[in-house]
Amino acid sequence: MTEVKNTPKRTVFFISESTGITAETLGMSLLSQFPQIDFTYIQRPFVDSVEKVNKLVGEINQIAQSENFRPLVFATMPEEKVNHLLQLANCHYYEVFDSFLDKIGNDLKATPVFESGLSHGLVNEKVYDSRIDALNFTLKHDDAMVLKTIGEADVIIVGLSRSGKTPTSLYLALKFGIRAANYPITEDDFERNELPAVLLESRDKIFATKIKAKRLHQIREKRMPNSQYAALETCKDEIKKVQDLYTKYHLNPMDVTSQSIEELAAQIVRKLHKTGNLKKTLHSWERKK
Amino acid sequence: MTEVKNTPKRTVFFISESTGITAETLGMSLLSQFPQIDFTYIQRPFVDSVEKVNKLVGEINQIAQSENFRPLVFATMPEEKVNHLLQLANCHYYEVFDSFLDKIGNDLKATPVFESGLSHGLVNEKVYDSRIDALNFTLKHDDAMVLKTIGEADVIIVGLSRSGKTPTSLYLALKFGIRAANYPITEDDFERNELPAVLLESRDKIFATKIKAKRLHQIREKRMPNSQYAALETCKDEIKKVQDLYTKYHLNPMDVTSQSIEELAAQIVRKLHKTGNLKKTLHSWERKK
Repeated sequence: MTEVKNTPKRTVFFISESTGITAETLGMSLLSQFPQIDFTYIQRPFVDSVEKVNKLVGEINQIAQSENFRPLVFATMPEEKVNHLLQLANCHYYEVFDSFLDKIGNDLKATPVFESGLSHGLVNEKVYDSRIDALNFTLKHDDAMVLKTIGEADVIIVGLSRSGKTPTSLYLALKFGIRAANYPITEDDFERNELPAVLLESRDKIFATKIKAKRLHQIREKRMPNSQYAALETCKDEIKKVQDLYTKYHLNPMDVTSQSIEELAAQIVRKLHKTGNLKKTLHSWERKK
Repeated sequence: MTEVKNTPKRTVFFISESTGITAETLGMSLLSQFPQIDFTYIQRPFVDSVEKVNKLVGEINQIAQSENFRPLVFATMPEEKVNHLLQLANCHYYEVFDSFLDKIGNDLKATPVFESGLSHGLVNEKVYDSRIDALNFTLKHDDAMVLKTIGEADVIIVGLSRSGKTPTSLYLALKFGIRAANYPITEDDFERNELPAVLLESRDKIFATKIKAKRLHQIREKRMPNSQYAALETCKDEIKKVQDLYTKYHLNPMDVTSQSIEELAAQIVRKLHKTGNLKKTLHSWERKK
């Protein structure tokens, strides 16, 4: 293989008969292994008719010609009629289903149904409703708004103000149907030198977070420029005090400075499974039998 | 291929050196094509050491023996050392990266870097911050809490109370960094027979939703049992009135009754791209060059 010079631009299509989430997640993940290339991404979900496919083939062919390079196409098109037409386009074609389904079918000794929209559609109202319930719970218990019922949470994320508790909580609720409360540790807690009793009753549900002073300062400055609250010294002071509280309660905090919401959520889910505190995560795409 | 009888139970592992999101999304999507089989899913993210892999291989082998069927393993392990060890387990092994990377490398005439954690990690603070900004905007403009600045939204979702506007808005913000406001259409709007002027100023950003009466009734009953608000007659009445408003403003509503959050979001993103109202969606996993 020869290395590409001068970071060329390459166009990538994510095409699906349904939402395109699978094609895009896989394609993005694979292409992240080629940081030396400058990709342009084009999403085309709900391509479910011969007419739409033909239009799309024209679009792909035009780009292939104008860029003098065949676009990459990641597609999840289980229905053969549309799939077949799309493959005729002037592109590098990666059919996500084709590549695996035969082998999986053989391994399972079962025949796939070849239907589209099975993985991210509204498959079951009960599963869906649990997810919405989790989201409502999470919104209600964001930022310690309600403490009385915090014991009903699956997870309680604690940490300093503006250290990313809310996005992680919402992601846990939306993605996994997890009831995620969060509690900002503030001056009051430092003064009392303890966490509220209602939190300690759910000690095993607490996930502590830590953050680097410079990053916290940067985030708070955006929120309240030139304030005492955002000052680097304040951040450093709070970080020291919160660590003292964590030590007191033997809490081992996750570092949110260098981790994405997805990474934090994956860690929490892993720990919940390990401790047995979560019997079951509801995946948005899970089909109830 | 012979069909499996008596819906046997099959165990599936999603294994990754990082979050496991790619392995799980792809695996779940593929397995949705086998609704006749009862799968048990086991997530094992952050498997990044020889020690962890060896422990996991023991676990897989034990299940293979006790269930008398080799578990399915979907793995994204770009680093060869760990990948190699895992493949020795007694399982049906699907390596997501292996299957595609060689072909993609050839097509692009480029060499992949074979690093883990590139796709769902914290890759760029700027991209990450935009996503958090979008989330903060969305939380602030949820349920018409703030109308004054609603014009700064990328998207304004309108519809009846409890018709799924909030989850879709939050999903758009978290997943795509889209600033999504939402506005519940209520009795006030029906009486005035118009939408607020501040909404109409952003007419091209409005996404209207509709829902079936029975489903709306069911959701509201859970929220406020036996109330006037939740009564089927009330729901029917509001649905008729909201449709009149949509007709007046030539709004073509999306039906939320039979669609998942992911499907609604994908539709909105598609329309935003079509109308040119969204220059760029920020994907959580997108790497800024």
